[in-house]
Amino acid sequence: MSQEYFPLEPLSVIEYVKQLDAVQSIFSADEDLTAEEIGDGNLNLVFKIRAKADPKRTVVVKQSLPYMRLVGDEWPLPIERARIEAQALEIEARLCPEHTPHVYHFDPVMYAIVMQNLDNHIIMRKGLSAGVQYPHFADHIGKFLAKTLGYTSDLVLDYRTKKEQVGRFINPELCKITEDLVFTEPYRPTERNAFHPAIEPQVLAMQANTAVHVEVAKMKEKFMTQAQALVHGDLHTGSIMINHNETVVIDPEFAFYGPMGFDIGAVIGNLLLSYASHETRTKDPIQQADFRRYLTESIIRLWKVFEQEFQAIWDHVDAINMPKGYQADYMLRLLQDAAGMGGCKMLRRVVGLAGVSDLRGIEDDTDRATAESLALNIGQTLLLKHSQINTIEALVELAVGCRPTYG
Amino acid sequence: MSQEYFPLEPLSVIEYVKQLDAVQSIFSADEDLTAEEIGDGNLNLVFKIRAKADPKRTVVVKQSLPYMRLVGDEWPLPIERARIEAQALEIEARLCPEHTPHVYHFDPVMYAIVMQNLDNHIIMRKGLSAGVQYPHFADHIGKFLAKTLGYTSDLVLDYRTKKEQVGRFINPELCKITEDLVFTEPYRPTERNAFHPAIEPQVLAMQANTAVHVEVAKMKEKFMTQAQALVHGDLHTGSIMINHNETVVIDPEFAFYGPMGFDIGAVIGNLLLSYASHETRTKDPIQQADFRRYLTESIIRLWKVFEQEFQAIWDHVDAINMPKGYQADYMLRLLQDAAGMGGCKMLRRVVGLAGVSDLRGIEDDTDRATAESLALNIGQTLLLKHSQINTIEALVELAVGCRPTYG
Repeated sequence: MSQEYFPLEPLSVIEYVKQLDAVQSIFSADEDLTAEEIGDGNLNLVFKIRAKADPKRTVVVKQSLPYMRLVGDEWPLPIERARIEAQALEIEARLCPEHTPHVYHFDPVMYAIVMQNLDNHIIMRKGLSAGVQYPHFADHIGKFLAKTLGYTSDLVLDYRTKKEQVGRFINPELCKITEDLVFTEPYRPTERNAFHPAIEPQVLAMQANTAVHVEVAKMKEKFMTQAQALVHGDLHTGSIMINHNETVVIDPEFAFYGPMGFDIGAVIGNLLLSYASHETRTKDPIQQADFRRYLTESIIRLWKVFEQEFQAIWDHVDAINMPKGYQADYMLRLLQDAAGMGGCKMLRRVVGLAGVSDLRGIEDDTDRATAESLALNIGQTLLLKHSQINTIEALVELAVGCRPTYG
Repeated sequence: MSQEYFPLEPLSVIEYVKQLDAVQSIFSADEDLTAEEIGDGNLNLVFKIRAKADPKRTVVVKQSLPYMRLVGDEWPLPIERARIEAQALEIEARLCPEHTPHVYHFDPVMYAIVMQNLDNHIIMRKGLSAGVQYPHFADHIGKFLAKTLGYTSDLVLDYRTKKEQVGRFINPELCKITEDLVFTEPYRPTERNAFHPAIEPQVLAMQANTAVHVEVAKMKEKFMTQAQALVHGDLHTGSIMINHNETVVIDPEFAFYGPMGFDIGAVIGNLLLSYASHETRTKDPIQQADFRRYLTESIIRLWKVFEQEFQAIWDHVDAINMPKGYQADYMLRLLQDAAGMGGCKMLRRVVGLAGVSDLRGIEDDTDRATAESLALNIGQTLLLKHSQINTIEALVELAVGCRPTYG
């Protein structure tokens, strides 16, 4: 870390932005700017910068801190993650610009990214909690997944570029967070685990279930060894900025070469967390059924769009090397990986250190426990049965068939 | 490549060795040395250096050339492979010194490794062709595989070291050779393929078999994506120096983070190439049965020793993270990977660019075609049935059940 690095503050970030050539098309040199620190994430400083005269002219500055913001400097984190994020955004923008925030500037000394302020978008998780349906989401995210995963894999890249990319995106510390929080801690008693006391019997039963440990171990092994594609690595609904027309994926600082199923599963698992939350979030049965239908249809649709977009890749591979039978096997393995890893992503949000507002934001205590109980059952079912799932409809059916144990 | 690099010759290599501190315990400063170029490999210069007064005082100097020696400078190869080899030897020596050549010196400018001259050993492939049995081989290689693979994997290394090692051993050009010669070219008509004309119908049938292409594609995908352990990457019987008491694995310039099954399969596949060659190499049926029993028992024994040595790793993993059921599944997948990849390693030696002397050294034309026909059938059977193999005995039974189509 250079001596020149310092953490930005609302005043210094304005000075910082003003001297950047890259934003001269947005702000004129002498005009007044405002800055507001809005980082609600766990890891970074995030500022919204606006022209006082015209708040629609705006950028975001995201700066890495050398420790985890949520916990403090006793949890150091490599500041390098800003470089990983900037490089991942660059690749995503090339492959799928319509769903990637525009980056104006990356500063490798300040570990700061100056990028598009998604001012007309909200964090998808919040929208889903409020029961808002996004009609184009499934199409957008299915395409984003196919483009960013397929086109960074060996199916498209030449052998040398792929292997060089693997090296550039080695991301040990952030992978370790996932290895611990998603694939290890929820399955054993640890101090960092937090869960609703009412579902303790269910949690203990899961932690005592050897079959769960076997399947988690297989998923963790894949996460740690399968350098299949440049994955986002943290693609939950809190990393998606959305409105009725647009879907933008942010925050790829966890990016590394890993299994495609991890990203696909993250999206599906987080839609199912919302599904579980509406067990009690929505009291009206018709509204509930309607929103849940939206969620399950979105899961089916995003997978179909993913498959369809991926077909363009299969159409260009050498059919002797990769005949149809191999292609079908590959897609089936992706679906099963997504189910198993998506299950793990759900479980860690019910049992682990970092919860999600979909569930933990439910005010009534019994309602919260009921929804969390359902989320745990769905996650566990997907994890245990992932290798028997043959279609996206079967995945949804398994999830929809679950009931809360509590409540 | 530095300006100071130059390819060594018998005269210059003596001057070169004399100025090295690292060999002063072997040669005194003024004594006369002899040098002989013995590189019979495809990629490098190899010299044996001896003290004239006492030829038992000796070292080997192995130097990388910036192109493939076999083909010439129209096939450039990264000279960096000497660094990969030296670093892999260093790790292997730490984990399994008794089966790794001692390295005195690595020169990163000359891309030269000065190492133990295995003067009392022969290349195992030659011994096997002559029908020599090595009683300790299976124990030695089983241990070597368990130590070098297990202890470089996530099962033992901490998360950061493992991922740093993956980066250090990214080896695109040499992996590409394997991707092409082992996993692509044998399965289609290409100019570089060479095979005995008598088995052409068999070769064409294999190349027309879609099931073969599907299984090869799965094996190639694993080779290209599964960063499981630091594999040797070229562990055929030509990379093993042996005598009745000692077994030493040389030449890890293809090393990279890949699937363990690739190394295990390379050993098994090459023992089965020898097995196939003795279909006609040994005319006396009793001798033939005896030597083949030695080969098949060695395969079974090396896997059992591998399992047993690997158990020491399982005994130290966290049993909650990796319960017995997962451990058993892991070992089974290794066996099946070894069968599938071992099958590919056999097929490339029958159909591909680089043959092996076990088969191509059989003088009689019909005898050679018969043995190659059998090798092709064994390789194809292992490849097609690898996912149904549950024990090492079942693998051997499948191989032994094959017959030559020709002859």
